[in-house]
Amino acid sequence: MKQAKWIWHPGSLELYHSMLLHNRRTSARRYKEGNPSNRVGQARSVYYYPMWRVDGPVHNTMLKKTATIVKEETIELFSNTNDCAIIVDGVSYNKNTKIKLCPGTHTVALHGFCAESFPAFYVTGDVFASDRTYKVDIQGKRYGQSAGESELYTNINDKVEVFKFSYKNVKPVSIEQVNGGLLYDFGKEQFAKIVVKSTELDELTLYLGESREEALDTDYSHIVVNAELKKGSYTSLAVAFRYIFVKTQKELSISAKLEYLPIKNRGSFKSDNDFINKLWDTCAYTMLLNSREGFFDGIKRDRWIWSGDAYQSYIVNYYLGFDKDIVKRTVRALRGADPIEKHINTITDYTFFWLISLHDYYMYTGDKEFIEDIYTDVKDILSFIEGRLGDDGMFARREGDWVFMDWSTFDSDGPMCGEQILLAKAYEAVEICATINNDTALAEHARKRAEYIKAQVNKLYWNEQKGAFVDSYTSGRENVTRHANILAILFGYVSEERKQSIIKNVIYNKDITPITTPYFEFFELDAMCKIGDLKYMTDMLNSYWGGMLRLGATTIWEEFDPKKSGIEHYEMYGGKYEKSLCHAWGASPIYLLGRYGLGVRPTKPGYEEYEVAPNRLAIGNFEGKVPTPNGDIFVKISDTGCTVLSEIDGGVLLLNNKNYKIPKNKKLSVKFEN
Amino acid sequence: MKQAKWIWHPGSLELYHSMLLHNRRTSARRYKEGNPSNRVGQARSVYYYPMWRVDGPVHNTMLKKTATIVKEETIELFSNTNDCAIIVDGVSYNKNTKIKLCPGTHTVALHGFCAESFPAFYVTGDVFASDRTYKVDIQGKRYGQSAGESELYTNINDKVEVFKFSYKNVKPVSIEQVNGGLLYDFGKEQFAKIVVKSTELDELTLYLGESREEALDTDYSHIVVNAELKKGSYTSLAVAFRYIFVKTQKELSISAKLEYLPIKNRGSFKSDNDFINKLWDTCAYTMLLNSREGFFDGIKRDRWIWSGDAYQSYIVNYYLGFDKDIVKRTVRALRGADPIEKHINTITDYTFFWLISLHDYYMYTGDKEFIEDIYTDVKDILSFIEGRLGDDGMFARREGDWVFMDWSTFDSDGPMCGEQILLAKAYEAVEICATINNDTALAEHARKRAEYIKAQVNKLYWNEQKGAFVDSYTSGRENVTRHANILAILFGYVSEERKQSIIKNVIYNKDITPITTPYFEFFELDAMCKIGDLKYMTDMLNSYWGGMLRLGATTIWEEFDPKKSGIEHYEMYGGKYEKSLCHAWGASPIYLLGRYGLGVRPTKPGYEEYEVAPNRLAIGNFEGKVPTPNGDIFVKISDTGCTVLSEIDGGVLLLNNKNYKIPKNKKLSVKFEN
Repeated sequence: MKQAKWIWHPGSLELYHSMLLHNRRTSARRYKEGNPSNRVGQARSVYYYPMWRVDGPVHNTMLKKTATIVKEETIELFSNTNDCAIIVDGVSYNKNTKIKLCPGTHTVALHGFCAESFPAFYVTGDVFASDRTYKVDIQGKRYGQSAGESELYTNINDKVEVFKFSYKNVKPVSIEQVNGGLLYDFGKEQFAKIVVKSTELDELTLYLGESREEALDTDYSHIVVNAELKKGSYTSLAVAFRYIFVKTQKELSISAKLEYLPIKNRGSFKSDNDFINKLWDTCAYTMLLNSREGFFDGIKRDRWIWSGDAYQSYIVNYYLGFDKDIVKRTVRALRGADPIEKHINTITDYTFFWLISLHDYYMYTGDKEFIEDIYTDVKDILSFIEGRLGDDGMFARREGDWVFMDWSTFDSDGPMCGEQILLAKAYEAVEICATINNDTALAEHARKRAEYIKAQVNKLYWNEQKGAFVDSYTSGRENVTRHANILAILFGYVSEERKQSIIKNVIYNKDITPITTPYFEFFELDAMCKIGDLKYMTDMLNSYWGGMLRLGATTIWEEFDPKKSGIEHYEMYGGKYEKSLCHAWGASPIYLLGRYGLGVRPTKPGYEEYEVAPNRLAIGNFEGKVPTPNGDIFVKISDTGCTVLSEIDGGVLLLNNKNYKIPKNKKLSVKFEN
Repeated sequence: MKQAKWIWHPGSLELYHSMLLHNRRTSARRYKEGNPSNRVGQARSVYYYPMWRVDGPVHNTMLKKTATIVKEETIELFSNTNDCAIIVDGVSYNKNTKIKLCPGTHTVALHGFCAESFPAFYVTGDVFASDRTYKVDIQGKRYGQSAGESELYTNINDKVEVFKFSYKNVKPVSIEQVNGGLLYDFGKEQFAKIVVKSTELDELTLYLGESREEALDTDYSHIVVNAELKKGSYTSLAVAFRYIFVKTQKELSISAKLEYLPIKNRGSFKSDNDFINKLWDTCAYTMLLNSREGFFDGIKRDRWIWSGDAYQSYIVNYYLGFDKDIVKRTVRALRGADPIEKHINTITDYTFFWLISLHDYYMYTGDKEFIEDIYTDVKDILSFIEGRLGDDGMFARREGDWVFMDWSTFDSDGPMCGEQILLAKAYEAVEICATINNDTALAEHARKRAEYIKAQVNKLYWNEQKGAFVDSYTSGRENVTRHANILAILFGYVSEERKQSIIKNVIYNKDITPITTPYFEFFELDAMCKIGDLKYMTDMLNSYWGGMLRLGATTIWEEFDPKKSGIEHYEMYGGKYEKSLCHAWGASPIYLLGRYGLGVRPTKPGYEEYEVAPNRLAIGNFEGKVPTPNGDIFVKISDTGCTVLSEIDGGVLLLNNKNYKIPKNKKLSVKFEN
């Protein structure tokens, strides 16, 4: 018998768990007075609504497969719902009925309804064992699409309604008597179920903190757990914390179960520089905690899936876990269901990143199947975007649009330059997707639109006097920010001359407001590495990321402003501790070190061909692995030269201005010539 | 404190229960050989998928109310979900928290999430007690719409997930030893939970039949219930049956709990003619059994909500229970959720009837509120229709469209005449809805389109030689059926000359295939009464409906062909007993007798003005009541004259070619002058 998988209407698993996770946020207590954004106070730990429409799965599913078998086989349907039927050559049977199929051509249809979650099917058999070779029947526009499946749900006993996390026991590393209570320190950030045992107490309030200060500030700590101990023990839902404070000195046992996905870190990095090693590990741990149903933004506050944040997690993932499943789940969750009424997460740039991410996905994984599976959605998203463009075919801000770009101040008069650049890049991604799907008309359309927008950006937004792109061409204020200029360099949308002008007038210009989020540092450093200034990158790792680590960060923060001090660092959105201290968008050093230190990148989809173009960094010797679909690539840089050991074909080492073919499974060592 | 009601996102209750009911159908065993439609055999009582996309409710809901109070009031939120918050003037609270509001202006927002069903809220208070004065917040296109509410759910202990049926114990009227088993006869059609008690048996198979033959034909009876009796008793879900056969002679108790909605029959009819009285009662009972979450088509097989079937139930309801709530629930259930991808029930005519029904609803109830609540949907449905018209602005058949009209044979080449007529009528309904919503532009557009289509119908489909409308103007076959001709007369879309021609060449022409469904008999008789041939109507009640009653019908059948005999009557769709013997679309005599016998109809919306234009029927003396929003109208016709006693103002009696003003609450008696 072939290994069967649980299958469902495409997107059902993702939409179901996305719906649940987006509704797990609770409100924080905010300042009642003196609050910078003047928000009113609100109670803690009350349900907090998602800020965009959250869609559930469809509740009716019909899947079908027709195939010719040469050997007799017996099939049997299992399902999570009783309202289901397996229809073999037009005859209906209940689940748990064994049906013998004679050699010949058969059609097996699976019909099901589930009100509480979504119908899922598991068919044991051989040719007719359930997997994505079953196709959507009847359901309108998705007719003929492959059934949804996931590597997480292949066992007959799996419950699709329960997300398949793993658990690991963790214990506090210290318990401190303070403020008349006890402070449990788990040593580093956790996303875990808290387990309290006590036979003396009936209930207990736990004040959680990502920081010590937050846990002890019981009026304002973000998450408060009311543990009911009537049966002697209590286990919470998984929550984020490093510290737990209790206002009692009674003896009790507090431990935790770390909730995580056991994605193996195939990527690695080690150097002579302890700080860089620690940073890499901290980034990897930040990724671990945020790698869940999809890629989360952060684990304390929103615990939501944001497309721009996820975009960066995908890229880091290609240099760390190389888990395709979580990328696909995240993309599906972000797409949501029909009708599309607003931008993804309501943010214009985040819709563009959704499309752009598919190009990256294809380059790193070479997985055409998913680009085919998601193609209807690509067209839907593009239609939505194009329905909201200006008369000139350029991005225009519409009612209800959130033009984010970054937490920074922009000249937001008229359409913003950075959005146009992302739109052009999104069109390029559409071109790739259309080409894979043999949709030459759309590919050509997208290619032309991308060219047009790039030309318009250079025409409308370039300011000769500033030697840079300005945010707005309508306001006359000539405001220059780093963001659009960085993206223009990163995507190669400017001439060499303009690039040098931007580097001088924007990037190296201290008068231009620096980036304060790791989110946009990703793009800035990616661009700087691309133009060959590796030192800018490692300096920033030391100063910016190092700044957090020196303040004791065990995971990367949502935002970091070196000018702040003390608990000012924890404040955001008008809440005293509302900043996330474990935010996935801070994990980009893994990408930067793998992509530009080890120098590995695919040059054909799925690493069919690839290059290793390592850079000597000011961090001493270093070595590491970069994962690919069919094996890992090990690269080592020492004082004297470079060694590559690759498990795959198709590589070339770029060193000493020469190309060296990289053999498969055989060490290649090249000495530096300069 | 004011009476609060449970409230929800508009449509949630309807979509949730519609989703459940549309998934309760099970398959019947069909003929394996010699089956007229050549369908393959299939197992019985296996889950059977709905034939159109069935939508669930939204799982996230945000409602809001802002009001100024002059007296202090205390509010408290109750909800069916724990994931909810009541946000008072920006501050979040958990449910079950009492919050005191001081005099002044307040905003109360209700946020909630429910994965398994839909969020519902109940707020105790005075001004802020929950009802439709709460409006949708945030959710896109429905922003500002009134919260959903229902007269069925006003008690704090109501569970919105449980449809609020009533139950009545019923017992078999006879038990017969036959075929080696026992046949329990409940005397008439039931839709009931079957209760079996036995301490001797562990399990028992119940063969149900709407007819005696069906119950005894255990290989083919449509519904089979496997009763598990391990604890000595078993209660089934509600199912349709009159007879229950068991293959055992062991002593056991079988009874049933009739499941129904206690809608009071405000309408009534009594005459000197026992057959007519029995028919009226049979129709009323047919309506009772099919009046549920919405108006069902029939209770044995589909148990679904079909728009054309429901359209007739609405109209009968205006002369029987006058229950606005069930009409509104049915309309919402049929609308479904976005995006609209197919016609309602996939049937083109059924989408037109959905619109047309709103005009009737408004005329009979005068309820502007609902026409306002549903107006977004009216526009959505119209957009969908107009997106599929031909280049000439006329109805065109598109891929995936089911052009039904009736179970009969039509010339289906090109667009069918009857569909154009329904489209014109639908435009007229849109005009009414748009006018109520002060949308003069759409009202004018709809008026013009209706005029245009009526003119086109008369131009394209009229055949001078046949003196009638033909089905198709493209085929050249000049096929005449009753249907389009009936609708043209009914809606007044033909000149007097053409009307007379149709009456002669179609209606009274025995060569034109007669109607075989009570569904289209409704329209035929409505048209015939409208042109004054009451005898045609009462003759048809005697011959057609009488035909069924003489064969022992206790409820009206889905179809009746007097030429068939024996169990041929029970066959349909290739199934031996698949015909429904309790089909709501057969209940039209209630309407026909009330509308044309008693002669009551509103002439201004909601019976603000109305007329009583009774007809002397060949059934002796008769009397009855017709319900209206604000009271009943009693009419009595004797040999010598007519008596009216009305509880409302605004009426006029049309008799003896004169008008008599009908006083309120005071008997008006007028003698016949001829």
